[in-house]
Amino acid sequence: MSVLTNDAYREFRRDLHRHPEPAWCEFYTTARIVEELRERDLTELHVGRDALSTDDRLNVPDDDELAEWERQARDDGADPDIVDDLSGGYTGCVAVVERGDGPVVGLRVDIDALPILEAEADDHVPAAEGFRSEREGFMHACGHDVHATIGLGVLDAVLDSEFDGTLKVFFQPGEEQVAGGKPMAESGHLDDVEYLYAVHIGLDHPSGEVVCGVEGFLAVRHFLAEFAGEPAHAGARPEQGRNTVQAMAAAVQNLYAIPRHADGPTRVNAGLVGGGTATNIIPEESYIEGEVRGATTELADYMSDHADRVLGSAAEMHDCEVDVSTLGEAPSATSDAALADVIGEVAGGVDGVTNIVESDDLGGSEDATFLMQAVQDNGGLACYVGVGTDHPGGHHTRTFDVVEDDVAVGIDVLAGAIRRVAETRP
Amino acid sequence: MSVLTNDAYREFRRDLHRHPEPAWCEFYTTARIVEELRERDLTELHVGRDALSTDDRLNVPDDDELAEWERQARDDGADPDIVDDLSGGYTGCVAVVERGDGPVVGLRVDIDALPILEAEADDHVPAAEGFRSEREGFMHACGHDVHATIGLGVLDAVLDSEFDGTLKVFFQPGEEQVAGGKPMAESGHLDDVEYLYAVHIGLDHPSGEVVCGVEGFLAVRHFLAEFAGEPAHAGARPEQGRNTVQAMAAAVQNLYAIPRHADGPTRVNAGLVGGGTATNIIPEESYIEGEVRGATTELADYMSDHADRVLGSAAEMHDCEVDVSTLGEAPSATSDAALADVIGEVAGGVDGVTNIVESDDLGGSEDATFLMQAVQDNGGLACYVGVGTDHPGGHHTRTFDVVEDDVAVGIDVLAGAIRRVAETRP
Amino acid sequence: MSVLTNDAYREFRRDLHRHPEPAWCEFYTTARIVEELRERDLTELHVGRDALSTDDRLNVPDDDELAEWERQARDDGADPDIVDDLSGGYTGCVAVVERGDGPVVGLRVDIDALPILEAEADDHVPAAEGFRSEREGFMHACGHDVHATIGLGVLDAVLDSEFDGTLKVFFQPGEEQVAGGKPMAESGHLDDVEYLYAVHIGLDHPSGEVVCGVEGFLAVRHFLAEFAGEPAHAGARPEQGRNTVQAMAAAVQNLYAIPRHADGPTRVNAGLVGGGTATNIIPEESYIEGEVRGATTELADYMSDHADRVLGSAAEMHDCEVDVSTLGEAPSATSDAALADVIGEVAGGVDGVTNIVESDDLGGSEDATFLMQAVQDNGGLACYVGVGTDHPGGHHTRTFDVVEDDVAVGIDVLAGAIRRVAETRP
Amino acid sequence: MSVLTNDAYREFRRDLHRHPEPAWCEFYTTARIVEELRERDLTELHVGRDALSTDDRLNVPDDDELAEWERQARDDGADPDIVDDLSGGYTGCVAVVERGDGPVVGLRVDIDALPILEAEADDHVPAAEGFRSEREGFMHACGHDVHATIGLGVLDAVLDSEFDGTLKVFFQPGEEQVAGGKPMAESGHLDDVEYLYAVHIGLDHPSGEVVCGVEGFLAVRHFLAEFAGEPAHAGARPEQGRNTVQAMAAAVQNLYAIPRHADGPTRVNAGLVGGGTATNIIPEESYIEGEVRGATTELADYMSDHADRVLGSAAEMHDCEVDVSTLGEAPSATSDAALADVIGEVAGGVDGVTNIVESDDLGGSEDATFLMQAVQDNGGLACYVGVGTDHPGGHHTRTFDVVEDDVAVGIDVLAGAIRRVAETRP
Repeated sequence: MSVLTNDAYREFRRDLHRHPEPAWCEFYTTARIVEELRERDLTELHVGRDALSTDDRLNVPDDDELAEWERQARDDGADPDIVDDLSGGYTGCVAVVERGDGPVVGLRVDIDALPILEAEADDHVPAAEGFRSEREGFMHACGHDVHATIGLGVLDAVLDSEFDGTLKVFFQPGEEQVAGGKPMAESGHLDDVEYLYAVHIGLDHPSGEVVCGVEGFLAVRHFLAEFAGEPAHAGARPEQGRNTVQAMAAAVQNLYAIPRHADGPTRVNAGLVGGGTATNIIPEESYIEGEVRGATTELADYMSDHADRVLGSAAEMHDCEVDVSTLGEAPSATSDAALADVIGEVAGGVDGVTNIVESDDLGGSEDATFLMQAVQDNGGLACYVGVGTDHPGGHHTRTFDVVEDDVAVGIDVLAGAIRRVAETRP
Repeated sequence: MSVLTNDAYREFRRDLHRHPEPAWCEFYTTARIVEELRERDLTELHVGRDALSTDDRLNVPDDDELAEWERQARDDGADPDIVDDLSGGYTGCVAVVERGDGPVVGLRVDIDALPILEAEADDHVPAAEGFRSEREGFMHACGHDVHATIGLGVLDAVLDSEFDGTLKVFFQPGEEQVAGGKPMAESGHLDDVEYLYAVHIGLDHPSGEVVCGVEGFLAVRHFLAEFAGEPAHAGARPEQGRNTVQAMAAAVQNLYAIPRHADGPTRVNAGLVGGGTATNIIPEESYIEGEVRGATTELADYMSDHADRVLGSAAEMHDCEVDVSTLGEAPSATSDAALADVIGEVAGGVDGVTNIVESDDLGGSEDATFLMQAVQDNGGLACYVGVGTDHPGGHHTRTFDVVEDDVAVGIDVLAGAIRRVAETRP
Repeated sequence: MSVLTNDAYREFRRDLHRHPEPAWCEFYTTARIVEELRERDLTELHVGRDALSTDDRLNVPDDDELAEWERQARDDGADPDIVDDLSGGYTGCVAVVERGDGPVVGLRVDIDALPILEAEADDHVPAAEGFRSEREGFMHACGHDVHATIGLGVLDAVLDSEFDGTLKVFFQPGEEQVAGGKPMAESGHLDDVEYLYAVHIGLDHPSGEVVCGVEGFLAVRHFLAEFAGEPAHAGARPEQGRNTVQAMAAAVQNLYAIPRHADGPTRVNAGLVGGGTATNIIPEESYIEGEVRGATTELADYMSDHADRVLGSAAEMHDCEVDVSTLGEAPSATSDAALADVIGEVAGGVDGVTNIVESDDLGGSEDATFLMQAVQDNGGLACYVGVGTDHPGGHHTRTFDVVEDDVAVGIDVLAGAIRRVAETRP
Repeated sequence: MSVLTNDAYREFRRDLHRHPEPAWCEFYTTARIVEELRERDLTELHVGRDALSTDDRLNVPDDDELAEWERQARDDGADPDIVDDLSGGYTGCVAVVERGDGPVVGLRVDIDALPILEAEADDHVPAAEGFRSEREGFMHACGHDVHATIGLGVLDAVLDSEFDGTLKVFFQPGEEQVAGGKPMAESGHLDDVEYLYAVHIGLDHPSGEVVCGVEGFLAVRHFLAEFAGEPAHAGARPEQGRNTVQAMAAAVQNLYAIPRHADGPTRVNAGLVGGGTATNIIPEESYIEGEVRGATTELADYMSDHADRVLGSAAEMHDCEVDVSTLGEAPSATSDAALADVIGEVAGGVDGVTNIVESDDLGGSEDATFLMQAVQDNGGLACYVGVGTDHPGGHHTRTFDVVEDDVAVGIDVLAGAIRRVAETRP
């Protein structure tokens, strides 16, 4: 009793693609998902505040920005009652289907978009076929529109099958800023989940390829360091300034010079910096928006502690203050082999799958790891699955796109694996 | 036969005050000045391209920005024919009055404004009396509206007197960015000037005080260093980046560390910096907008040469490129005592003058020095005059303002001195 | 027909221990080895210049220092004719035994010591038993005295057995500075070696433990960067200096900040730095003695290229010159499993061996890798073997020592493996 | 009743020249001065501990070094009883002659030498005439041997004249390290001094020229920053180090970048730096021996405060400790015109004086300023006098030397001025 045909899934994905929204601004996106979910026979549906540990939200935009995105969602026809529930940046939802006494299985999909201007060329399918982003400067350039659709499709497939257990689908906001994983992991809805899958489309794997268990998640912390000093006329009274650009530069030089660690890879980047007001004024304010990573959570903590030290002493060096806040974070995690094996078994029987890869390294960060770790800490199993697609542009580029037929592959593989897990309790 | 009454000068100044415009965007300002000048009995009037050495203009805004300011000038009622002459950022003008065989005397006044948001409080006179800036975010916060008015008033006073000589008044654009002095100095109109005065209101001197010859001009160069590197994913492929924020930070640290010079004061400031796009991308582009200064032109050159070296090698250090351009510059200069003496003699007889100061240090930079130096290089004399006023806020602050009666003091002192110079050829 | 008893090996080792000599100064050490070798029935014996590719020697001390060590060797009774052959720092030797048509098997042992002051406490065996270093400030703190003894012992054991093949023992100077591996690898004597073993005592493995194939060699380059600038009086004429300490500091900051590499571990260290002459003189000369490493030779090259760039541009930044020279280097390498397997088989039957470890990571650098790589490039096999010993102090500390009975274990394992290899050609 | 002939003064100076001694090691020098003084009819003679505020001594060498210099002094024939009084580095002395009720006039001369290897060439007079330094590596390269001789000569000349007053001659140790001025200024002997002269030979003024009142003393602080961290193997465990070379480099970069000050010239120099032990060890210890200066004591304090801040936060940045100590210091000072005028008057009548210069800038630092300031703070007058001499090499170079006839000029000018001051109380 599938609610949606393949055409309907495609239309749904294209609708989301036309309305890309960044972290905590997924008003239209969440509303559309909830509208669809309300048509299903769900046991529970948690929306907005009910889906999150609200205090754990990181890097929430200011009220004006939230209000502007909310207004656009309403203008574009999002259900106003649902948007009311999301108001203030409480986006995302959790859908629950309980069918018998079998185990609780979770699926996590993310739903946010990126601040990238989408390509307009004719060879970019969304542009050619009329579903290019309508929010100039923002784009679903990492396939989260597809992930949300897979979430819906898996729910439908499970509803339409003999499934003995409970399925929870987590539609998570704010992954791109590693800001939404923790509030969803801490929401309480994950506490009884015994098996958790997360899924990603693409990842440089071609159409037909499935990666059973992705590894190599770098633990990460995004930080914002805001330096405050004192302005002065650079010609007449240079000594009266407290120079934040000097502090920032000293910090940058020494952040990259944090000692390498013998236990494994670490990373640091001062990705976005700025400061000052005019050539002839000693710069009063500066900032670094940066990140540290590590192959393990311990290594990321090592980098984070050193970064805090460098930032604090660089400010002190130039008699400035610095305020360091965390914009986003995610731990490291590993995919459990038992769940990956299930993917391998199921994928072999799915139409369109031509190659099964046991494992591959992500080489980046993902806050699905918060959810994976929470389940594993409770004694459960977790696994991150990759579904290949021929994507013409790389992830996070203006020309990223997917082969829409691969959405069905994703739905079939995940739905099949979830049913198998409920049966076999691996 | 004064064309304007004191009331009219006040209205003229307030009109300019309501329409502050930055360098090369002084469309309304120049048009209003030219409208007034056309009503005088001038020998010559050079406008726009005819008033400048156009190739020497520095830091001209891009076409869109110029067009926007030009549009506003037209909207606010500037004479469209005059604005046509200024189109493309060719602002400023030179007025010439030839009366007999006496010497050629020049007066330089500047006309541009600053990117500062003007105060709105009731104790800020322009706000209280309805002539606060109508260009939000821009403000005549250094009194160039007064300078332009003094230029007009001196012209009127000389026209109205027995004057045996030639008077040239230089209405110069772009002083705040030390961008307009050179193109006006190189225009050719200065070539026959034997005596040159420049004037500034305020400078922390109270109403009633006149500074005969200002000294202490720091030679200055404003520069823009644009670093170009290569982006890369900071987690997955850090080694593939060429990191411009590292280059920028190395440059900042070493710019401030350029060795002090035993011959006199030097200055350096990285006043405005920025770089990068996102926390997880190795930053591909960065910039420093900065300045160097010296008590003499040689000292400023010393700093500038070292800054170029630091910027170039910092880029090289991180395998980046850097393009360094000059946004503005001005040499050092000194006021000739003979001309300052004339001011002292004349000021003693001017109503409202209560204190005469022989000399004081500016402690900053000014591109009037280009014109002063040009005249002095030709064997002439030059002098920079300060006219005090009780200004509630400091120069370049939101609450800067002048006592309007002091405009008349400025006109009388300068007009008197110019007539005296023509008579006495000091 | 063993020439030496176990007691004799112990005495030999203690004699070397009393006379520790650094790179290219192993006059006494080489002379004593050669004296012993001359008593054996060798096919060939190559000493000094004949044992090395002399042009490839790195970091050779200056003539005065060489002469002083040479003098001490003679004073301590080294054979003067042999020392004549070594004069000028041409230390080390290669012993060849040809027995039948079997394969050519090599054994590489290193013979140099460290600039460390040996412990004097009673619980330090060499002090208690009277064979503490007689060269104050130098010490066999890494067991190369044992390695030389093992080289001799293996030669004896092979001479004393049915061995069908050719054995070459390489007594290599200058390992501690990774300075001697390349000249020995390029000597020509390695060209026909089909199987090569190298051996190290200790490595944090206890007595009774044998590591069949050591891995994890970091490729390394030691470099010396010498900065040259211009002095000046720091009070009177700071601008006339060209400041090498500023250049050095800029280099240090940016060396540690060379981007991490996704392909594997890298290292950098400015281990020894200095500069300047007096507080009031702009420092004319400075230096950095440092190193870069990588898990692979490519990664070490990446670091080395970046280091060269940083050093060059840091000098340029402060208008200085820099001369960068290589003091030592070694590639990465891996142990061939086939040879490691032979060790495992043989060690099982050796008295005193209680635990066999297949593989362990060195976590450092070694220039045996030059010889290993040369053999492997010729199609041969190479393997680095660890022989455990309970060492009270860590390697490179003042209290390092070995259990002397473990020397016999090393001899038996290596000699057994070499015979087995000649038989089985694995 | 002059004790010494001109020849005797020359021999005395040459004796000191042959025995140059650095700060707090002037055992031979002080002993020879005291021997001479004991032959005069002095009112008081304070030696060693009695001549100094002993707690204020800075940068005293360690006991071994003091003992070695003391031993050499005894070997070279210094009076053993006097050396006993100086033992422990309590060098210098104060001679007092009281003659009637006139004012107390002081003369300060310094007596220490420099760590410079004296030239050996034939055109270097001390080498040619056999009084080159007998302490290899040390040299009277700034004429303090001459100053001590002038001190003695002035005393003789005053003793030999009608002098109504008290003369105190301060033979001060440790000027080259600005370490001896304060302990002598705080000794109590200066408390009743109403007029103080200090004198320097040379200063780039030729023979026959006298500078009446030297100006331009930069206040100075010499500091030693010692960084302590934690060593670690740079290949195996880089993260376990606390890297003092990184701390030192960060400090150097930011020391030179301390903001310039609008009130006047400032200086900073990291003149002597070092750190680390080996290329492969994270460097555990590092140091900076540096200096800051300012045109006024306030400016030097500004620099010193900022330097302390930079050093402390640079250590903190790399989790190291730093200990910053003061090696030497001196305030700024000015010469009183009234005393300079006396020099001008007297010098006109002195044989050999051909040119009188009112004032000149030192452009460096001197701790005579401690004594000058102390006198001035008590309401007295002070003046620093320059006595020209044709010196072939610059001050602080290997070929520095003086024209010995100019010693008499110095004696005559100073003695004459002191007598005139006692008479006229200017």
